[in-house]
Order: sequence, then structure tokens, then C-alpha cells
Amino acid sequence: MVMPRLKPFSGQEPKAASPASEQKPPLDLSHHYSRVTKARQESNIKAFYKYFAIPGIGNLAGGLPNASYFPYDTLQARVALPDRFEPTSTTSTTFSPKSTESRIASEPFARIVVPRESSSSDPSSKIDITTALQYGQASGYPPLLSFVRQFTRENLHPNVPYAGGPEVILTNGALDGLSKAIECLSNSWDKTRDWVSDREGVLCEEFSFMSSIQSMRPRGLQIVPVKVDLEGILPSGPGGLEDVLENWDISKGKRPHLMYTITIGQNPTSGILSVERRKEIYSICTKYDVVIIEDDPYWHLQYPSAALSEASARNLPPPAPVTTISSSQKSSGFPFLDSLVPSYLSIDTDGRVVRLDTFSKSIAPGCRLGWVTAQPKLIERLLRITEGTTQNPSGFVQAMVAQVIMGPQSNDRNSGPTGWKVDGWVRWLEGLRGNYERRMQIMSAVLEEGKFTIQQKRMANDEDAEWAVVKKAEMYNFCWPRGGMFLWLRYNFDSHPLVGQVDGPRLAKALWVWLTRKPYLALVMPGEIFDAVPGSTTSEGWRFCRICFAAVEEEDVQKVSIGFARGVESFWHLRKVKDIEGIEAWAASEEREQQGVTDLGAGWAC
Amino acid sequence: MVMPRLKPFSGQEPKAASPASEQKPPLDLSHHYSRVTKARQESNIKAFYKYFAIPGIGNLAGGLPNASYFPYDTLQARVALPDRFEPTSTTSTTFSPKSTESRIASEPFARIVVPRESSSSDPSSKIDITTALQYGQASGYPPLLSFVRQFTRENLHPNVPYAGGPEVILTNGALDGLSKAIECLSNSWDKTRDWVSDREGVLCEEFSFMSSIQSMRPRGLQIVPVKVDLEGILPSGPGGLEDVLENWDISKGKRPHLMYTITIGQNPTSGILSVERRKEIYSICTKYDVVIIEDDPYWHLQYPSAALSEASARNLPPPAPVTTISSSQKSSGFPFLDSLVPSYLSIDTDGRVVRLDTFSKSIAPGCRLGWVTAQPKLIERLLRITEGTTQNPSGFVQAMVAQVIMGPQSNDRNSGPTGWKVDGWVRWLEGLRGNYERRMQIMSAVLEEGKFTIQQKRMANDEDAEWAVVKKAEMYNFCWPRGGMFLWLRYNFDSHPLVGQVDGPRLAKALWVWLTRKPYLALVMPGEIFDAVPGSTTSEGWRFCRICFAAVEEEDVQKVSIGFARGVESFWHLRKVKDIEGIEAWAASEEREQQGVTDLGAGWAC
Repeated sequence: MVMPRLKPFSGQEPKAASPASEQKPPLDLSHHYSRVTKARQESNIKAFYKYFAIPGIGNLAGGLPNASYFPYDTLQARVALPDRFEPTSTTSTTFSPKSTESRIASEPFARIVVPRESSSSDPSSKIDITTALQYGQASGYPPLLSFVRQFTRENLHPNVPYAGGPEVILTNGALDGLSKAIECLSNSWDKTRDWVSDREGVLCEEFSFMSSIQSMRPRGLQIVPVKVDLEGILPSGPGGLEDVLENWDISKGKRPHLMYTITIGQNPTSGILSVERRKEIYSICTKYDVVIIEDDPYWHLQYPSAALSEASARNLPPPAPVTTISSSQKSSGFPFLDSLVPSYLSIDTDGRVVRLDTFSKSIAPGCRLGWVTAQPKLIERLLRITEGTTQNPSGFVQAMVAQVIMGPQSNDRNSGPTGWKVDGWVRWLEGLRGNYERRMQIMSAVLEEGKFTIQQKRMANDEDAEWAVVKKAEMYNFCWPRGGMFLWLRYNFDSHPLVGQVDGPRLAKALWVWLTRKPYLALVMPGEIFDAVPGSTTSEGWRFCRICFAAVEEEDVQKVSIGFARGVESFWHLRKVKDIEGIEAWAASEEREQQGVTDLGAGWAC
Repeated sequence: MVMPRLKPFSGQEPKAASPASEQKPPLDLSHHYSRVTKARQESNIKAFYKYFAIPGIGNLAGGLPNASYFPYDTLQARVALPDRFEPTSTTSTTFSPKSTESRIASEPFARIVVPRESSSSDPSSKIDITTALQYGQASGYPPLLSFVRQFTRENLHPNVPYAGGPEVILTNGALDGLSKAIECLSNSWDKTRDWVSDREGVLCEEFSFMSSIQSMRPRGLQIVPVKVDLEGILPSGPGGLEDVLENWDISKGKRPHLMYTITIGQNPTSGILSVERRKEIYSICTKYDVVIIEDDPYWHLQYPSAALSEASARNLPPPAPVTTISSSQKSSGFPFLDSLVPSYLSIDTDGRVVRLDTFSKSIAPGCRLGWVTAQPKLIERLLRITEGTTQNPSGFVQAMVAQVIMGPQSNDRNSGPTGWKVDGWVRWLEGLRGNYERRMQIMSAVLEEGKFTIQQKRMANDEDAEWAVVKKAEMYNFCWPRGGMFLWLRYNFDSHPLVGQVDGPRLAKALWVWLTRKPYLALVMPGEIFDAVPGSTTSEGWRFCRICFAAVEEEDVQKVSIGFARGVESFWHLRKVKDIEGIEAWAASEEREQQGVTDLGAGWAC
């Protein structure tokens, strides 16, 4: 069998946002590459590729098993139609209280079939078992790669400013993309062996996604938190980006040359970084030569209704809409995509943005499928890393996702194989956004209601003393999530009756345990899990908790939100140190029971 | 949703080969771990796992998307029955000349269905979309993991000598397993920065699998070839293992503490390392504290008929059968498995063997699915690496493979979902072995026939001089492949008419090009590709070529083998230096045409 000679990427070239003559090529980033990455070489087998294409050649060279010995004759699936879920409006805050989900069994569906062998001669549309389950190319399965590349370049980021635009490579999910990007762009460091002056650092939000941080820390990289606000990283001010870089203390290691950032639906804070803020931060990164690794799993989950509903609930004037695409820029071709805050790539004149995408939140996490978008030379280095590690994502998922999106079109919606195409894909994403946005609204409305409690103010220091003065106390505050899957809630422990007698972190821990008990039964993620530098004296994570509105069944969102709010209120009514001690004793007895606890999966670390 | 609290591995514990009281635990290998690996920590989220199991808890903690929003309602496949292919006998050398493959369309088959949600409450048999496409555990999807673990411990390696036996973790294929093992067990090194005395090394066969070598080399590891013979690594003698380790020159770096080895159907040599040889090598590895990384993709492709047929074709007495399992050892439960030469694990008293498995040659390479077997503490370190990189193999392939093997049993073989079970899985492997063994026989018989040519010996040095003396010249020799997918052929350039006028490597290159031309059209892999240290003065790879009998269609094996043999013979009849120059000129003109050649995939590097 002779593999087809592919042009690397067969997508149509996008029209440049500005005339090609004005566009400059991306900067050379090779001084950022790690020593191991610089040492990676192209396979020496490439010199032989041309011979594979000799007509009629009997190929005894490649070490491929025979495709007719694969046990799968076809792969099939029953899949959703792209309009299964109902989108939300970008301007209205009215939501139907009832779930739009009905039982999946009764939903209309399509069927897809991946045949043993497709008759297509075009590798970018040939989706079959013979190719998908054979050894593949490290950049990705040609049909899926061509779709992802075209979607990325033309629809998702039509305005990348450097000449030629970005390139893509498929990954085994965003964390795989991150670990490859970090391997590409950083050298590992060990305190027992290396000079402090060689230690490299990574800037990140002060509250960040723990799995990402934990994947970087063992390399000895210094994790450098930057202060955030509602949107995300602060460019200026104490602890902001310019402050951290300008006043970098070289005795602690090299000034960081990497930034890891989640800019949409930030995990855990749910912030969306505005275009204006992006420009400020990008300009600082240019000044200090920082490469931006943008992890963006929630880009399609932006909730314009959040700011509107929040203002309305608080009797504030409606906020100005966020900046998305300007009239001088190229449209994505889809109103939904045009309505979203764009990636750092859209202002990446230098080619210093490495963007991580995933299908985890748009198809399913079990795909273990995503892609990286960056300037071509960097993608080439990631290709070399991929060749020596994962080789390529599983052909099962690549074929099944490709067939759902790119499969043959059918007019009969209820039978026969059919593909969503780009229109259907965007419609699917819009429907998902709708589902999650409704959940966000339900939870936020309940928690908004429950922020305050009526408190009696203590008259004396004696715990058994009388209570008399009545006060309205704010127990917590939060922003209605602008994106993503989480609500980031800040407790106001200063209003707790036991403030001064029990310190804040101890109160926070007791509250967390309290919420898990009957009748509240609300399990949330303690904020300190997200401290970029756990245990640091300046870490503030203990003041927060992260509440996920995505995972529980839609009909339960309201119930568990109410459970949470009632639990917090009841905790604010605990008036004795002994109450806290009782909770702690209960938790300690539970600790003793914990045995044989095992790997429950990365999902819990999300 | 609350994830089930799993015991890590729910397989039945195997009975010990020797009484448990005699078994010692594996050695502590932590001094072999890399600095980065030592720094990896368990996720701090584990402390919260116990709360996930509180009955009725509303889980707002995990960052999981909602499973009802995955677009797949079911996954299905049409799959082979385990007896689709015909096994070969382990004692006979008679083979049907016709392919046993008929068109797949007419084959009996089974259907498998992965439903939206399985009603099983046992995680090790619950195979459904809701779990397979959700975030998963890094050790593997529970149903597949439990099968692999049980098969590995009870059937494939029932005689691992250390107490408690080995543990397993699923990987994204053998190269992923290797890259994780290498990350676990070696520190990277750079000549511009590090002391030579810190440089670590990896022992390997002098001819080895290039993708593996290329994945290790960029880390700065010194690749240290060891001489091989028909079986594999030589324990003693010049260039053998003891020689290399005993006489290690410390000025070139640390004495190697790792060995990378393919012991069955070695790539490229096809050797199978005997049990006796394994014991000798293992004992040297114990003496020098070397960890053995055993890459074993072809373990089920062992061909007892090769030695018999080779002896018969050469009029030699039949060889003694190879040692496999001894009567004092525990049986695998399957005659086929008992007939195979076992893994290094079967003699691994120290726990210094890290074995890499893959489904690439038993199901399909596009699975990107495999596993590592080693002592439990080492598997725990690989688990930490996996959590920070790939997380777990794709749920699509894990569910589809699990369902084929473990799906519900059905009595009606032609309809309804059915699973192969362990019996069917072993039968499938035996059928595959049969297919590849027949191909090996066909190719070997043709090449055996074509080894010699009738030559006229040159009478003078003048190229145009008369030719007169007739001689039978051996153009090449080879061992009938004992296993794997390759035939490793050694040219005898000393018998070529142009020896002395054109040096050997140049002749080899011209021959390789010559074979690709009409009418021979045989593309083989040049041997120098497999030199562990390319370009070294002692490298001998240029004398060889590797011929794969696995990939071409079965009905073509004979034809292309004949083309190869005729091509070699015609090359041996070239008598003028100008003939070689003509081939070189043609090849050079082809080089110029080579443009835009791109990543054709890791398969070519296999």
C-alpha cells in the first residue's frame, strides 16, 4: 500500500485581513525552545518518501500490519442532529424555566458509518477504517486535520495578523497540548543540581487550573502568579503583569518567558478577558518577550446575559456590550462566532501566541482530542515532539469525529448517514452554549437571592450571652459567570459571628465540610485548590469556592444551589466555637475511614 | 454524578507460581528515577474523594461537562468473529498456498453496541458512552483495564517471580509507553551545559527500531549498541553486553543503567531471544543494575515453522524446539500461549523489567492503545506522568476494544452483540499469527530460491574484457524470520562483480534504487536506517535490508518477493562502473523532484 502524497494542509487559504503586502511574518521564537526540542530532528525516513509514490511499487519497506486483519468491518454511531439543543439569545435575559432536554431516546438523530474502505480518492475526505486504523500522520488524520485547519483559520481566527496565518496540529486533548508546548518551550530545572539563575518561570493567573499547574511544576519551573480581577490578568498595578516583570528579582531565577492563561470562562474565576485588556497585556508580553500559552476550552461558552442579569438583579444600569469583532475586520461568516470575544491570536502580530483547543467541552472529554494553533515553525517543533511520543490521536476518535462533522450530506434528516458540516458544527456549539447558559442563570439567580442573612449582633464576648441587634449581613458575593462552567464565589467571613475567635482559613474549611452534610449535601471545590502557589502567605484562595453548574442534571441545578445557599446561611448562624470544633471532629473521623482511595481520574482535577 | 469508588484493579489475584512465602518483593528502583519524576506529586484533590461518595450529594465540585450533552447516542461496530482467520500448526510446515482471506463482506461477523448508559453497577463491566466519553482515570478505562490486568497477570505472564506480581497502566501505544518510561527513568543531558560524567546511556541492539531510538536521542542520552546474533543481544564476547558494561569508559558518560530491547520478532532482525539467553542477560543486568525496557509488539507472532522450513530448505537436520514454559511453572491456560517464548517478566526476580505492550499489531495501529507492565511502584510513577500529559487513552477506542473483547456473550453467532472473552481473544491472536506465518513462509521460500546466481568471473581489469569462468555466487543470505513482520537480509557484496571498484555502501545504495525501478518495483528498507548509531565507523547496517511481509496484500507477497529476487540478480549482473553511475544519476534527478514532501506518518518509521 502506498500512502497518498499529501500536501500538508489542503484547506483553502483564507483571505488576509489586511493586504498581504502589509503583513509581516511571525518572529523567530527559536531562542525560547528547550535544549531537547532544539535537538529533535526530522525522521531520516523522509528521504525515501518519493519512492513510495512510484506507480505499482511493491511496498516491502514500511512496517505496517495488513489493514484487512483489523477486526473492525465498520464503525457506526447514532448521533445528535446539530439542532438538538436550543440556543440562547445574545441580548435577552429571558429563559424558559424548564429544561430543553427531553429523553435522548426520543430525540431525532442521524446515523454515521465509517466503512471498511471509502471510495474517495481525496485524502481529506476519505474517512474509512483502512486509513483511520492504520498508522497515521503526526499532524492528524487528514480529513479531520483539514476540517480543523480550515475552521481555525477561516472561522475561529480569521484575523490573525501575521503573514501566512497560523498552522495547527492535532493533540490528545488540551493537557497533552500544554505538556508538549511546555516541553517545547522550557528546560527542566532542579534545585539540587542547577543554578538558580537558570530557573525558568511561567506567569499565570493567581487562581488557575490546578492540573495545568501540576503538570508544569515537576519540571522545576517557577510558577509566578499575577493578580486578577473579574476579567482576568491585571496589566498594571501592584502584582499586575508589568509590576511582576519590571520588578523581577533575578536572584529567584530567570524572568519568566512564558505565560499560561485561560482567558475565556477562566477556571476557576469564570472571567472573560476583554479585547482592550488583551491588547494591553500583549504589548507587555512583546516588551518582555513573553510567549503566551492560551488555554481556551470554553471559548464557545460565553454568556452575554450574565452581565445583564446581574445588573438587573442588583438594580444597576445595564452594562455596555463587550467588544468583539470590529467592522474593519474579516467576519467569521457566522453571527454566533462574530458575537464572541476573540482569541489572543487575533492581535498576535509577533506570532508569540500558542493556543490550546480541545473537543472536551464541545464533543466529550473522553475524546482525548484537541489541537494547537500557532505560527508554523512552532507547530513544526510540536510535530517532532508528537512523532516521538503520542504519534497521533486514536484513529477511532479521529474518524468518528470527522464523520460526524464531515460525513456525506443527506436531505432526509432521520435516516442515512449525514454530516453536520461547518454550519451544523457552529449550530451545535450554539446549542451547547444555550444549555450551559440556562444552567448558569438558574444557579446565579438562586445564589443572588441567598447572599444575605439576618444576624443578631453579639452583645458580649461571653458565648452564651444575649443576642439582640439585628443586622443584614452579606455572607458572600460573586459575579454572574461570564463564561465557562464555574461560578467563583467569595465568602465574606468578616460578617461571620465567629470572626475574631476562629481564623478565616479554619472557618472556610469547616464551612466546606458543613455544606457536604445533610440536609445541604452540596459539594463544592475549595478555593485554595486553585492557588497558583499553594500555601503562600499571599494566597487568597481560601476565601473562595468554585461551584460547577455544568455536571449535575439540569433539573437538579436549582435544588443543589438552594441546598448550598441554605447551608451557608445555617453556617452563618453558628455562634459557638464548639460548633466549629464539632464539625472538625466529624471531618477527622471521616479521614480515618479513608482507605484504598484510588485514581478517580483527571476529571476531578478540572 | 458521583464517580464510583473503585478498587484500583479489580481482577482476580493470580495464584503464585511458587509459594507466596518464598517470593520476595521487587527491588526499590527509585534511584533510577529522573529528577522530574521524583518531583511529581499526587493530586491534592485526592483528599476530597471520600466526600464524592456521600449518598445524595450534589456534586458541584468536579469540572465535568454534562454527559447528556455528548452528541453520541450509541457507538456501534461490525466486527470479526475471533475465528475469522485460520491458525497454523506449531509443528507442521505445510501451508495452504491460497490465502485464507476471502472478501470481508462475506465473512461472518458480530455486532457490538456501546449504549448511552449501561445498567451494570460494576465499573469493571459497565461499558457505555456516559462513562467512556467522560473524563476518565489515568490508569485506564475500568472495564478495559480490568481485562488487560487480568490477562497480563494470569495468562500472558503467570510466572512473574516477585511477590504480589506486576501492575499495569494503559498507554497511547508502545511509543507513548516508551517515552513515559524514558521520562521516568532518565534525565536529559546537553553537551553545551552539562558535565560528560552526568550523561546517561541506553543499551540497545546494534540494529534497532528507529522511531524508538529517535525518541530517546534528543534527550541527550547516549545510545550504546550491543552486538546481536540471530536471537538478539549477545551476553558475552567482543561487543556483547558484559564486554560493554565491564569495559565502560567513564570519560564518555555514566555507565548505562537502561536497556531498550525488542526480544521477539526483533525489528529489524526478526530474532527471538531464547529463555536461556534471557537468563544470561538478566543476570548481567542485575550485576550492573540495569533496568530492562522490553518492547514487545510481536509477542504473539512467533513462527515455530521458520526454523523447520529453513533447515529443510537447506538440507540440514531439524533444529531442537525452543524452550518455552517448564513443567514446574504455572500454565497460561492456553496451549497457544504456553507454546510461545515468554517475556523477561517471567524471570524478573528483581522487578527491573518494564514491558511495553500495544494493540497495534493485534487490533490496529490506529487504536493508539497499549499498556505497560512493571512492578507497582514504577507503574505509580507512570500514572503521575500520565496525569500530567495524556490523561488517558481516548474513550472511543477504550470502549470499542473493551466491548469487542468483553461485550455480553451471545449464543447466536451472527446477530446480536457478543464479546470474544479471553478465549476468543487468544483465538484471534492465533489466527493472526497464522496469517502472518503463511506470508513469512511464502516470502522466505521465494528468497531462499533466489539466493544464488551464476556468474562469469572477470578475466582482466579492463571493463570491456572477456568473461569466462562460471561460478555460483551467493548474493545474499538470511534467516527465515522466527517472529514479527520482517525478513532481515544480508547482502554478500563480496560476490558482486564490481567489488573493489565500487565500495560497499555505494553499491548498497545503488542496489536499493535499482530495486525500485521497473520491472522489479520492490521497495525495501535500507539497513543503515536501523543502525543504532548512524554513521559510526563500526555500523554495519548498509550490508542489510529489511523486508516487510506484513503490509502488501497476501496474493502479492509472492509476486513482489520474486521481483525483489530478480532485481538483485540483475544487479549482480551489472559489470560496469558506468552502470552504477547511471543509477546514481537517475536517483539524483529524482531528488530534485522531491518538493513539498510532508509528514506521511509514523507508520513508515516502523
